[in-house]
Amino acid sequence: MNQQVLQQYLHEQIPLSQAMHVEVRSAQLEEVILAAPLAPNINHQATVFGGSASAVAILAAWSLLYTRLRHEGVNSNLVIQSNTMQYLLPINGTFMARSYLEETADWPRFMNMLIRKGRARMSVTSVLEYEGREVGKLQGEFVAFLVEED
Amino acid sequence: MNQQVLQQYLHEQIPLSQAMHVEVRSAQLEEVILAAPLAPNINHQATVFGGSASAVAILAAWSLLYTRLRHEGVNSNLVIQSNTMQYLLPINGTFMARSYLEETADWPRFMNMLIRKGRARMSVTSVLEYEGREVGKLQGEFVAFLVEED
Repeated sequence: MNQQVLQQYLHEQIPLSQAMHVEVRSAQLEEVILAAPLAPNINHQATVFGGSASAVAILAAWSLLYTRLRHEGVNSNLVIQSNTMQYLLPINGTFMARSYLEETADWPRFMNMLIRKGRARMSVTSVLEYEGREVGKLQGEFVAFLVEED
Repeated sequence: MNQQVLQQYLHEQIPLSQAMHVEVRSAQLEEVILAAPLAPNINHQATVFGGSASAVAILAAWSLLYTRLRHEGVNSNLVIQSNTMQYLLPINGTFMARSYLEETADWPRFMNMLIRKGRARMSVTSVLEYEGREVGKLQGEFVAFLVEED
């Protein structure tokens, strides 16, 4: 998927992504990379607000599954069920969220389940990076629902 | 703490709280209640974006500890270390985040540790509510660092 198409989709459909000035740096099947600057995401300690860090990590994770499902030509709704988030180091500037599948071997099982049962679960990891260091990590659990074509 | 004072503090110090149109409904020692409308927090499915739900829940949890620490007259920095978040039901309108201490008995231990060691951990729960139902739940782990007065 084209990174500009994904960025436009996020900004139009999820206005908070625009408020956070999220940029799509890469939208591949292997990983999605989002970036966000400090200013709109700052907190009282002049570092990135944990809620922004989480939200950008969730967006990256969601975007990876969205990119993969579009690539498969499958029309589905994608919903987050739960996540864990670790805030490892303070973030003092533009940061990145890089999402990927921890277990790529799970993908065929996921697609098979989605097609057969109309519903399947998938886990996605997003790592937050700032100045080349890992500063946060999200593990998100998503459910995809197959949308029947009219 | 006065709810207007907290709201102004959040809006000034954490601009994303303003972008999400977060309102402080209550700021007590027992609970902090924040509210946020759908429009600035909407997603592609016309429900609340998971990143917004998480961010408002984190803000409510943070605000409870901030309110309590100010009440104690202690000057400290408060940082989130980790959280888990469950998204239980879709949210189709203005929602609330209500934060509280699961274990109020932990508070004296926390204060004692903060004063003696200059650093202490605390767990806070935030429940998301929409139309009277529990629609999400966050468990956040925070660390407070004592700030030495000059």
